[in-house]
Amino acid sequence: MITTANVKNGVNVDQLVETIGAVQQNPELAKFEFRSKNEWINGGHCVSNIKGFYGVGQEDTSREETFTMECDHPNVLLGNDLAPTPPEVVLHALGSCLTAAMTYHAAANGIDIESASSTLEGGCDLHGFLGLDPEVRMGFDGIKFKLNVKSDASAEQLENLAKFSPVFDMISNPTPVSIEIVKQ
Amino acid sequence: MITTANVKNGVNVDQLVETIGAVQQNPELAKFEFRSKNEWINGGHCVSNIKGFYGVGQEDTSREETFTMECDHPNVLLGNDLAPTPPEVVLHALGSCLTAAMTYHAAANGIDIESASSTLEGGCDLHGFLGLDPEVRMGFDGIKFKLNVKSDASAEQLENLAKFSPVFDMISNPTPVSIEIVKQ
Repeated sequence: MITTANVKNGVNVDQLVETIGAVQQNPELAKFEFRSKNEWINGGHCVSNIKGFYGVGQEDTSREETFTMECDHPNVLLGNDLAPTPPEVVLHALGSCLTAAMTYHAAANGIDIESASSTLEGGCDLHGFLGLDPEVRMGFDGIKFKLNVKSDASAEQLENLAKFSPVFDMISNPTPVSIEIVKQ
Repeated sequence: MITTANVKNGVNVDQLVETIGAVQQNPELAKFEFRSKNEWINGGHCVSNIKGFYGVGQEDTSREETFTMECDHPNVLLGNDLAPTPPEVVLHALGSCLTAAMTYHAAANGIDIESASSTLEGGCDLHGFLGLDPEVRMGFDGIKFKLNVKSDASAEQLENLAKFSPVFDMISNPTPVSIEIVKQ
């Protein structure tokens, strides 16, 4: 008997159901640790290498590629504009995560997503970063995410599915960041 | 008379002082808006295009390149591992932003940074994302940032400078995210 994988929205639903079952049987499998190594080049220009992670009870050995990403700043922010700024990179991560969370949870619920595209906007006031006004925050005062989607599900349903996004949680709720500085 | 720009840590300090002066004279110049366009490819695979932004009182015309970034998921998270995951991308943005904030503010304070490199780790528990336990959050339960730096300044001084980072603020404090779903 030949069986075909049950794939919806590009997500292997059989594997998803299997993963949920495995995690329910052995909660330790749900623990993940992601990592990044960052190197300062000059000014506001940095490069990160991303490869190893821990998950499903072990150190991952499947990922073959080391992903390289850069950040820089435009000329008006004293950079050479070689790469997006860190806040723009956050918008990329947030948009991708909200979208992927929606498509995964839609697949698990038998909902088809035909297409999805989005725009993200984040505003900030340099008085915060420049230390000119302690009342003004350094980061975005808010982010607008607008998602265009083709699906039979209601907008409300889709929004609830998108909100399973880990990055949405990290941005909209406080995530503790510990800082350790080691002098060389 | 030939004058040389006053550059420290790769940051043009003259331009930085000028920027601060301009913002103090005209607070509207400090308002920035960054943007990203995101397109869903399949499953947990998305691509973003980043170019236009608003700042210094006008729509930017200086950036020539459109930056393209991708997110995907490793095989154990039902993806094809073509790009880093959104949470890994957040680590990249956070490490770059903390480092750049330190080097900019160090430059403004006459502190030399000779070198800087860092590692970031973020842990999470899939019980959150999978909707198996409402008590478990979807995102990282915490992020560890460890920065190795060569500088005459103290670790405490450097930490205070790094904390001007906009992305550090966005992650460690709540940032409101509005979601609008438009059915096509």
